[in-house]
Amino acid sequence: MSGTSDAETSEVPRTSPPIIAVDAMGGDHAPGEAVRGAVIAAREHGLRVVLVGRRTEIHAQLSELDALRDIPVVHAEDNLAMHEGALASWRRPRSSAAVACRLIRRGDADALVSAGSTGGVVATSTVRLRTQPGVLRPALAVTLPTGETPTIMVDAGANADAKPEMLVQFAHLGCAYAQTAFGVRKPRVGLLTIGSEPGKGNRLVRRATELLAATAEGAHSIDFRGNIEGHDLLAGKVDVVVTDGHTGNVALKSVEGTAAFAMEAVRQALTSTTLAKAGAFLQRGALRELRERLDSETYGGAALLGLNGTVVIAHGDSRAKGIARACRLAHDLAGGRIGDQIRRRVHTRPPNWLHRLAQSEER
Amino acid sequence: MSGTSDAETSEVPRTSPPIIAVDAMGGDHAPGEAVRGAVIAAREHGLRVVLVGRRTEIHAQLSELDALRDIPVVHAEDNLAMHEGALASWRRPRSSAAVACRLIRRGDADALVSAGSTGGVVATSTVRLRTQPGVLRPALAVTLPTGETPTIMVDAGANADAKPEMLVQFAHLGCAYAQTAFGVRKPRVGLLTIGSEPGKGNRLVRRATELLAATAEGAHSIDFRGNIEGHDLLAGKVDVVVTDGHTGNVALKSVEGTAAFAMEAVRQALTSTTLAKAGAFLQRGALRELRERLDSETYGGAALLGLNGTVVIAHGDSRAKGIARACRLAHDLAGGRIGDQIRRRVHTRPPNWLHRLAQSEER
Repeated sequence: MSGTSDAETSEVPRTSPPIIAVDAMGGDHAPGEAVRGAVIAAREHGLRVVLVGRRTEIHAQLSELDALRDIPVVHAEDNLAMHEGALASWRRPRSSAAVACRLIRRGDADALVSAGSTGGVVATSTVRLRTQPGVLRPALAVTLPTGETPTIMVDAGANADAKPEMLVQFAHLGCAYAQTAFGVRKPRVGLLTIGSEPGKGNRLVRRATELLAATAEGAHSIDFRGNIEGHDLLAGKVDVVVTDGHTGNVALKSVEGTAAFAMEAVRQALTSTTLAKAGAFLQRGALRELRERLDSETYGGAALLGLNGTVVIAHGDSRAKGIARACRLAHDLAGGRIGDQIRRRVHTRPPNWLHRLAQSEER
Repeated sequence: MSGTSDAETSEVPRTSPPIIAVDAMGGDHAPGEAVRGAVIAAREHGLRVVLVGRRTEIHAQLSELDALRDIPVVHAEDNLAMHEGALASWRRPRSSAAVACRLIRRGDADALVSAGSTGGVVATSTVRLRTQPGVLRPALAVTLPTGETPTIMVDAGANADAKPEMLVQFAHLGCAYAQTAFGVRKPRVGLLTIGSEPGKGNRLVRRATELLAATAEGAHSIDFRGNIEGHDLLAGKVDVVVTDGHTGNVALKSVEGTAAFAMEAVRQALTSTTLAKAGAFLQRGALRELRERLDSETYGGAALLGLNGTVVIAHGDSRAKGIARACRLAHDLAGGRIGDQIRRRVHTRPPNWLHRLAQSEER
């Protein structure tokens, strides 16, 4: 596979660079932007990518970009619908996401990047890649647009109902992410809740606080810094924010919605009078940078952690650059062997009673 | 009591204007800003206010403002500590908040305004004013800084653990608020969750969806518009957003934190280069307006709904203007007889099994 420079190879320890399977059919602007993103990933970032989807459509796009020989294509006749439920999604064995998972299971690829519907990709990859031994549930990790150091939030929406024991595992998954993607040696972990004092929060949080406080010992101890409130999400106080998927998803979307609202308000404020318009003209560079920083595409998307294979889910409305960034993230996670890190952290199978507990509460 | 103009009186139907008891000792800047806020409320908004707290301190402040004869003072020797737990707070029978509640119970005041710790004021007023008949739990309502029409979120943090039946009541409380404070005839209600399709969300949300959908009939029906996601909080799609106190508090603080983060980023972007500085100079007016709009003090604070008496909790770091706005909100709610509206909506006592259910799950 071309497009891989020697410099790139030397960054990845032990094995050859990971192969990223890009779901060409996922996202609002598929296949065009997905294909262009894969080409950027290959040409500009030097990553090894393969496109999965309807061959004729992908070939037409690649041909336009003069990239037919740069990126191999694996055919998949079906695709996940953007607004299809999770159940319907994973029933499609010939979808591009399902075929990409098959490549990973066979060892022909290491990671999946898709801008398809989050529910559909989570369901498809969970069923087809399965969870790593000892992992109770896979969880979505997202990077928040904090100032200096990025903060990772887990779970951002894979599990609407969580158990306290799962939150402890989410902390481990988030720590593995922070170490692999950002080289944080000893990630600081906070628990998202409604007050900074211990004992604040709902029953789930109160019990998880006890369990997290008890993990301070051992080789893979957690540096638990206690409770984190919503207004601290962007303050960079911790490296990993742990929460259930319901709260995490609402918090993430509140942050994204407010950032978009604020940027729109700034835009309007800056163009409301002639004087302000003149001012805005002088500031275009600075404001563009700011918009970039608050843009949810900047960090490449959400990683679904805890499966036998790396999965990165880009925003549904991702453009080519967003897809390329998601490929970069998938490369860093798979190349850094995040799976091995998670395996070491969640090294013992949980006792049977814990498995039973997790399953008995399903309805 | 002076400071009440005739114009003011004519706005309030049926009875004399409500009397607002202002907790002079609550908040980071008490008693100075609380007293100044009360004076603004009386002089500029023409409201009837009474200050509650340590008489000598309050008199000293009033004297400086030449307002000794404008506002009566009721002495309270104690006060709630800002970071004291809820339990400790409501044990203080001589705190300014507790004394203000006594004024309300005796009929000497109609509303309490405090910038004290939310947990302390919620605990104190819930114990001392008690819930209205049929109300399962009081809930905190806040106004989100949406564009055209304000959106009310209930519960913003009074109940970390909620039952589906409580969420239905929160919808009624929020509707009564929207009607009383903003004159919305038929408030549209949304349920905060992690996907827009029905059936998305955690167990609590899924059950509440069924119950809310069943309230479409009757005199006090709810105009339930289904699920609302985090990024819709500021979009003005509904008038009332219903959620449990855990999710609501995290969402509220995520919005506040992101707005503050974005404003700071804008400030930095606008002063990063000489050209940008020149631009910023031209835009000061427009940006000041924007900051005002995103400022959480603008809407006067959170209302604790469902008690026998109006309670408004201002931000802990409120300045005089924030306290005055909280007084204005308390005036509108008490003067509009929100208590009567809630009584009509929650008119039947819930069946015994529901009460038992609510209590059996407490630990």
